[in-house]
Amino acid sequence: MEIQVFGTPAMAQPGDLLGGTVVVIDALRMTSVAAAALLNGCAGILASADVPEARLLAERHGALLGGERESVRIDGFDFSNSPGEYTAERISGRRLVMTTTNGTQAILAARDAERVLLGAFVNADAVAAKVCGTGRVSFLCAGTHGRFSTEDALAAGAIIARLRANGASLHGSDLSAVCETLYAAARDDLHSFLGKAASHYARLSGLGLSDDLTFCLTEDSIDAVPERRADGWFA
Amino acid sequence: MEIQVFGTPAMAQPGDLLGGTVVVIDALRMTSVAAAALLNGCAGILASADVPEARLLAERHGALLGGERESVRIDGFDFSNSPGEYTAERISGRRLVMTTTNGTQAILAARDAERVLLGAFVNADAVAAKVCGTGRVSFLCAGTHGRFSTEDALAAGAIIARLRANGASLHGSDLSAVCETLYAAARDDLHSFLGKAASHYARLSGLGLSDDLTFCLTEDSIDAVPERRADGWFA
Repeated sequence: MEIQVFGTPAMAQPGDLLGGTVVVIDALRMTSVAAAALLNGCAGILASADVPEARLLAERHGALLGGERESVRIDGFDFSNSPGEYTAERISGRRLVMTTTNGTQAILAARDAERVLLGAFVNADAVAAKVCGTGRVSFLCAGTHGRFSTEDALAAGAIIARLRANGASLHGSDLSAVCETLYAAARDDLHSFLGKAASHYARLSGLGLSDDLTFCLTEDSIDAVPERRADGWFA
Repeated sequence: MEIQVFGTPAMAQPGDLLGGTVVVIDALRMTSVAAAALLNGCAGILASADVPEARLLAERHGALLGGERESVRIDGFDFSNSPGEYTAERISGRRLVMTTTNGTQAILAARDAERVLLGAFVNADAVAAKVCGTGRVSFLCAGTHGRFSTEDALAAGAIIARLRANGASLHGSDLSAVCETLYAAARDDLHSFLGKAASHYARLSGLGLSDDLTFCLTEDSIDAVPERRADGWFA
């Protein structure tokens, strides 16, 4: 397998994502939320670039609205970006339109890929099982406001480590090797590692969102991988 | 000190490099070569974007020409990008115009910075001593063909580790912390680490340039830091 990691959407050059398999990662928190919603029966998730568009799409499709700006709930939205809110009671059988600062933007940046999956620590095993044996897989890290985010690179490393453990023969880019090295250094205590090396972890922690952090850093807790369907919705 | 690392020039957003101190790193090999040339008495180094411009500049200034395309010497140039060629006998008292695939492009990307230094493993200690106490320092890694390169991130980590050892109080970006972690994992055997995690190391090794690799990965062997003067030349 050919493995490439892009630390931010801007690191991908024109054509890099065209036609291949792309795993979009926004581990804190959007792609973790999407996996949780799917696990709890959500009928489909659509990524939207901005709040007015998200409202229009939700109205047109009778969907619920979830996401954040500045890490907090958007006025009038059904859900913030906290995974614990997406219970089966509230989301089962319902469609969901999401707009977030980083994750949904990265999903839109992958629009020309042939296949798009959403990955995170919570579904690392499940993502590795889905893409194992694929010829070329790119990991597109969302980052934070266009900046490299340690947590997304680490989640890419977590999935790559599982591919290797599954016996895949990997030919990786430099950043792919770096992500594996990072994950090996961090895996015993993700919270402690990210507490020192990830500004977005510190920010969410400062907002009192430690339950979200615990949820998002619990590896392999969800056996569901949101994947883009032909109509653009993830299910 | 505020520390930021940009893994490639494209990772810097507009304004990021404006007015601050920027350490440009192309550890394999351009910034190592520049340090070696300076140590051996080179009177000034000018970065040029392309070969025809480099020829014109060299003619205008009576300078020698050095650099590479596809990692090899450019037709008619005095030097390739191998540091061992830049002996005192050949370079002392002479000016040098350089054009390379990655390093000189990164230098040009830093043109709006207030202060620009060239850093590498060979002068890591000297760079740390020069910038220690500066309010804001950005490390601009050249990368390879616009891709993240492990060796440049590692050299940034080497300099940041020395700043920390010198007692500097550091407030770093996520990638700054990642570079420090990588360097801690790699410092005992840079060759072995880069042999596994750096495609450009493998490429140069395959071209038979192992003397260059040994030169460029010998830490703190050069007590000289090329710094941009008001006229744009590095000395």
